[in-house]
Amino acid sequence: MNLPRVVRYEDGKLLLLDQTQLPHHERFLCLRRAAEVARAIKLLQVRGAPWIGVAAAYGVAIEAQRLPDDKLISGLTRAAQMLIRARPTAVNLSWAVKRMMSVELRRTLVVEAKTIEQEERARSQAIALKGVKVVPQKAVILTICNTGALAAPGLGTALGVVLQAHQEGKRVEVYACETRPLLQGARLTAFELLRARVPFYLIVDSAAASVIERCDLVLVGADRIAANGDTANKVGTKMLAILAKEAKKPFYVVAPASTFDFQCRTGADIVIEERSGDEVRRFGRCQVAPEPAPVFNPAFDVTPARLITAFITDAGIVKPPFKRNIRRLLFG
Amino acid sequence: MNLPRVVRYEDGKLLLLDQTQLPHHERFLCLRRAAEVARAIKLLQVRGAPWIGVAAAYGVAIEAQRLPDDKLISGLTRAAQMLIRARPTAVNLSWAVKRMMSVELRRTLVVEAKTIEQEERARSQAIALKGVKVVPQKAVILTICNTGALAAPGLGTALGVVLQAHQEGKRVEVYACETRPLLQGARLTAFELLRARVPFYLIVDSAAASVIERCDLVLVGADRIAANGDTANKVGTKMLAILAKEAKKPFYVVAPASTFDFQCRTGADIVIEERSGDEVRRFGRCQVAPEPAPVFNPAFDVTPARLITAFITDAGIVKPPFKRNIRRLLFG
Repeated sequence: MNLPRVVRYEDGKLLLLDQTQLPHHERFLCLRRAAEVARAIKLLQVRGAPWIGVAAAYGVAIEAQRLPDDKLISGLTRAAQMLIRARPTAVNLSWAVKRMMSVELRRTLVVEAKTIEQEERARSQAIALKGVKVVPQKAVILTICNTGALAAPGLGTALGVVLQAHQEGKRVEVYACETRPLLQGARLTAFELLRARVPFYLIVDSAAASVIERCDLVLVGADRIAANGDTANKVGTKMLAILAKEAKKPFYVVAPASTFDFQCRTGADIVIEERSGDEVRRFGRCQVAPEPAPVFNPAFDVTPARLITAFITDAGIVKPPFKRNIRRLLFG
Repeated sequence: MNLPRVVRYEDGKLLLLDQTQLPHHERFLCLRRAAEVARAIKLLQVRGAPWIGVAAAYGVAIEAQRLPDDKLISGLTRAAQMLIRARPTAVNLSWAVKRMMSVELRRTLVVEAKTIEQEERARSQAIALKGVKVVPQKAVILTICNTGALAAPGLGTALGVVLQAHQEGKRVEVYACETRPLLQGARLTAFELLRARVPFYLIVDSAAASVIERCDLVLVGADRIAANGDTANKVGTKMLAILAKEAKKPFYVVAPASTFDFQCRTGADIVIEERSGDEVRRFGRCQVAPEPAPVFNPAFDVTPARLITAFITDAGIVKPPFKRNIRRLLFG
């Protein structure tokens, strides 16, 4: 399958596909410092929890190449903090950065970053192969945000399952939520589905209630999953979960097992990133709301575990009771 | 209260506040033919079921002024069909046009159009006074689309209840859904709430699931209500109703009694207008999705009666069982 090249390491530089320019332009950023990588993460030029982790890992790696010996430790420490702060909700980010900080330096860091990318790729593959089993031979699938190759190395998470099913010859059709405010569905998922020739319709997010009855299942990604199964993901995910419950449709969260965060007992422990009101007030160069209009703009929401049918992970499918079965999956 | 002048009849011409230009410009269209009015309705330059009805009534009236005697009847018949077809879902539109077609001609038509406007204004007032009773002294209210003075003569319907409560000194705070694809919430409701100094936050539609727990009630308008209470309104309304049910919050539909349509037994009989996919693919001059992306763009959805707490109408508040109580409200 013709997957877009999202992240590429090249001799001390990180080449990043600028996702804010999609679907108009396939432009690559050439980054030489961790600060530039943190900025790219903050501006959503790279996005999707797994890719963010990979980009941050390379951010630590390229920073190590350029720092003078006497500032190596202090500079990397600062870079790590900066990278972790770029998006507070994604757990892979701090996981990848912490992992980078625990290895031998310089060359080892590049090797480690490449290893993280390869592992994510293998994880995507494992997720797709496990997830494809829940997709019937003929299926209408509802999804939100972008969770494909643009979001994770390999095929991706939720959209990876769709792509895998399509590759295996299943007759899948997708309703893709446009995903306001930043329209990852309209800009990125539509781009990937067209490229992969998967039949789909783009809808406004609130039209999910109009199409849920004709869908067979809902597939979403995750940015952080608490020990009890409460799941932080793109704002709108909780809406889909409630609609799915009302319509009695299965609702699957698709994510690598590294997305489980035992530091969070429940969803209440997950910090929800609030982003600038201008994302809602404006639209590209168009202003849509009056300038002084106050805005509440949470980037994520928390879907209560009770609304989730199962978690599809690289380590296996987790069904309720979640608290016990998540622990069992991770610790045997 | 400083309400915007939405529709004004002036000697054979209809002056219409162009709502597609809000909040940037307060521009008036000067219309001289029914075809121009139908076009303005189709382009959403005038919107909100009651204002659409009023504008269409004036559309018939101005057409009567300009038609030569020998084409009066045939010309008006054609104008009426054109106006009714402009938006298939709004029942007030066909109701107002049919009413216009049943009166004496020319001067009478202008008088009749003015009467319809005055009656809508009185209806808004009655709705606001009935509806304000369901609003606690201190209330957080969730709403969608625009249902204020820009949508109906007077204070409006759902937003009219909010404005009335605010005028009476109740401490109301609003979460206003931006209302994709055409952003009536961001462009129009934010404009009205700023003007009326009602505290509010603008949110993306899918963030409704994030704020529903902190809301005390949901107020929405309606474009057509079937005999059993199933309600067609702006796409996203059904989503709010399902979220409200899940969070155990009251969900009120606010509309003039003329919105009930006994020609429709249930919601299944209501035709849902599908609008151009470009509304979703594009955004003003910005293209957001790839050009070939297929789109499903229903302008409305149907909220099942079982999700509705009550109907707030000018004739009174209707509680379940709806089938019996709607009939009783309308026919005594």
